[in-house]
Amino acid sequence: MSQSPLRIGLLGLGTVGTGTARVLAENADSLTRRAGRPLAIVAAAVRDLDAERDCDTSGMRLERDAVAVATAADVDVVVELMGGTGAAREAVLAALEAGKPVVTANKALIAEHGPEIFEQARAHEQPVAFEAAVAGGIPIIKAVREGLAGNQITEINGLINGTSNFILSKMASEGLDFAPVLAEAQQLGYAEADPTYDVEGIDAAHKLAILAMLAFELPLALDRIRTRGVGQVEAEDLEAAAELGYRIKHLAVARRSERGVELCVEPTLLPEQSYLAKIDGVMNGVIVAGSAVGSAGFYGPGAGALATASAVVADLIDVARGRVLPEPGPGKTLPFVDPHTVVSGHYLRVQVLDEPGVLQTLTGLLADAQVSIESLVQKELGTPAGWAQIVMLTHEVSLGTIDQVLVRLRDLPCVQGEPVHFRVSARED
Amino acid sequence: MSQSPLRIGLLGLGTVGTGTARVLAENADSLTRRAGRPLAIVAAAVRDLDAERDCDTSGMRLERDAVAVATAADVDVVVELMGGTGAAREAVLAALEAGKPVVTANKALIAEHGPEIFEQARAHEQPVAFEAAVAGGIPIIKAVREGLAGNQITEINGLINGTSNFILSKMASEGLDFAPVLAEAQQLGYAEADPTYDVEGIDAAHKLAILAMLAFELPLALDRIRTRGVGQVEAEDLEAAAELGYRIKHLAVARRSERGVELCVEPTLLPEQSYLAKIDGVMNGVIVAGSAVGSAGFYGPGAGALATASAVVADLIDVARGRVLPEPGPGKTLPFVDPHTVVSGHYLRVQVLDEPGVLQTLTGLLADAQVSIESLVQKELGTPAGWAQIVMLTHEVSLGTIDQVLVRLRDLPCVQGEPVHFRVSARED
Repeated sequence: MSQSPLRIGLLGLGTVGTGTARVLAENADSLTRRAGRPLAIVAAAVRDLDAERDCDTSGMRLERDAVAVATAADVDVVVELMGGTGAAREAVLAALEAGKPVVTANKALIAEHGPEIFEQARAHEQPVAFEAAVAGGIPIIKAVREGLAGNQITEINGLINGTSNFILSKMASEGLDFAPVLAEAQQLGYAEADPTYDVEGIDAAHKLAILAMLAFELPLALDRIRTRGVGQVEAEDLEAAAELGYRIKHLAVARRSERGVELCVEPTLLPEQSYLAKIDGVMNGVIVAGSAVGSAGFYGPGAGALATASAVVADLIDVARGRVLPEPGPGKTLPFVDPHTVVSGHYLRVQVLDEPGVLQTLTGLLADAQVSIESLVQKELGTPAGWAQIVMLTHEVSLGTIDQVLVRLRDLPCVQGEPVHFRVSARED
Repeated sequence: MSQSPLRIGLLGLGTVGTGTARVLAENADSLTRRAGRPLAIVAAAVRDLDAERDCDTSGMRLERDAVAVATAADVDVVVELMGGTGAAREAVLAALEAGKPVVTANKALIAEHGPEIFEQARAHEQPVAFEAAVAGGIPIIKAVREGLAGNQITEINGLINGTSNFILSKMASEGLDFAPVLAEAQQLGYAEADPTYDVEGIDAAHKLAILAMLAFELPLALDRIRTRGVGQVEAEDLEAAAELGYRIKHLAVARRSERGVELCVEPTLLPEQSYLAKIDGVMNGVIVAGSAVGSAGFYGPGAGALATASAVVADLIDVARGRVLPEPGPGKTLPFVDPHTVVSGHYLRVQVLDEPGVLQTLTGLLADAQVSIESLVQKELGTPAGWAQIVMLTHEVSLGTIDQVLVRLRDLPCVQGEPVHFRVSARED
């Protein structure tokens, strides 16, 4: 057992960087045993050299230049926790070019610049590990890539944005609207001051692109993901879904069929007894369907300084043990399925004039479009006088057909405003 | 990338062996990419050379002598799927002595003969991989050992015997007694003809010993596990627990505190909203608490030919990639906590004479023992005329105190038969 330390250059000493330093310090003995050698942060790149920090920095050289830390002669492995895709990309590419393995928690960096980074990694025969980039403390990258490696993975369903799950869970449990719950999430530190990445589904799409790449051995395909955010869900939808036996969750789906690969991230109705429907608050959950295992589920904190550090340190141990391989080049390519051709159940909610004949008009419109209705509920609570809310679940029909139905519904004189629409997942696991 | 195949000697071509052969054949291209070389079964040890098999054996040499296969010159890695601890032990030791890595799904073998096997493995510098030995297709060994390696693991709670979970789930959902549900489990192939290992908790204890060894870096401690089986639960208990907001599950617990390590496997009341309470049927679930991650949950099939094969093949890929290390020698030793000193809530059910003053006698007895009652419910349904069932939940108190209470309850003239007792878990995650 080599006892010379693995010397870490840490890029970024913010929340996750500080958490990583604390985990390395607090568990040093165990980590040394597991890694086969001590893990020591020798240098850290920081924005402000004089800031107060919540970890011991006495053994670290603090520098302002991330590339200098990433390429320093006394650094064996680079841990990128700066975030963003500008300076982080530059430093990671420099580290690989200097022949150093990289560990990163940066989902945007991998999802957007993965091809360039992996090519650099292959050229210099260095591993890039990114367990912390998806689902925080849940070891889902390792599960997909190693633990379930015996399987043809056919489908991944996940709640992989804690902010979105917190917002929908809280809206559902307390009957609140989106805006006040978002404000509370921001106060609690679960959402950023600029919440765009989380609430518009971009963060979840980043993570889904990474999972799909690993599960299906495909190139990254961020631009092929159908993406909708949680801002489109209203309190009435959560209530109506619950009455029908469903929960609305911000669901990321990567599915492989004979036709190709389907990728989407959007609010979706899940049967209330299913695994993911029962995961609430900021927690993440992922369920993987594979040819041999059937289904395997994973649950845990998707964010937070220490939870993310847990994944970063696991990657460091794997690097120390030589367990991380350079990313293979993209294997096969599979066609992408046009989401409009994908068939599922659908949830529709429209506000209509509360007068005779309206229901007949609606149901006639759906019948004309060959859309068969599984259930229809009329709700009046919270609706302005003279109007009614009609909630419908359809049998399986393509998204393209539903899109046409939505256009025609919007044009009906008896319909007010935008019809609301979400997909319904049939998965019971 | 070396293209010479990793040559597998398979010991046992029963259900799991056949499943493994099928998974290797069906996913051959992907597996070759993931392992860096083809995985090929070249020889298999079987009991009956002429039996019909549900897999293609054309490329395999079939032999009756397991040790011969385990030590054959053309075998690079040995996969032990014979079960039992006699011939399997002999063959595994012979394989290691011959310098071959071993993959096994045999929990009894590891739990009972682990020290001897690991010592042999260290002596010959060969890895022993056993992902399939715990929780079937769930990659929990990898999660505990690698994915959560950054943590001090403080506690593992698991439903790690599918038969027991099936029995309790079915009894609860249909109000049935133990015996008919066991018979159904046997018919469905979820329980063996001799169900002792499963229903008495021995199988779960084997798996818990393995998890605790990995999580706490301890020697195997099968004999330190407090073990009770599901046969002690009656339909009335499941119903009473549900009314109080709990589910009764066959829970395996490994917990580390300042006092030492506590290990137990027994029917336990779990809050109905907790992760494990919601896992039903033959599925397994494990929740791991760690210093950095907080809690991470894992869910999936705990048995079945293909699910177990999923784990066996993942181990084979890890062996091919050199990712499995020889088991380290036992690290520190920690004291074991006497379970009678462990404090928790408790569930008690006693059948008493339905007459005035009986409740006072019971509550007085508990007050004398300093046991404080959180809730008390009297039930008459299904109880013979003249008798009543009293169900009590206690506040936190030691198991030792409860054992004394049980003795004194049994001796009361107003109490009929054995008082029923289970622990209550306070974990809400």
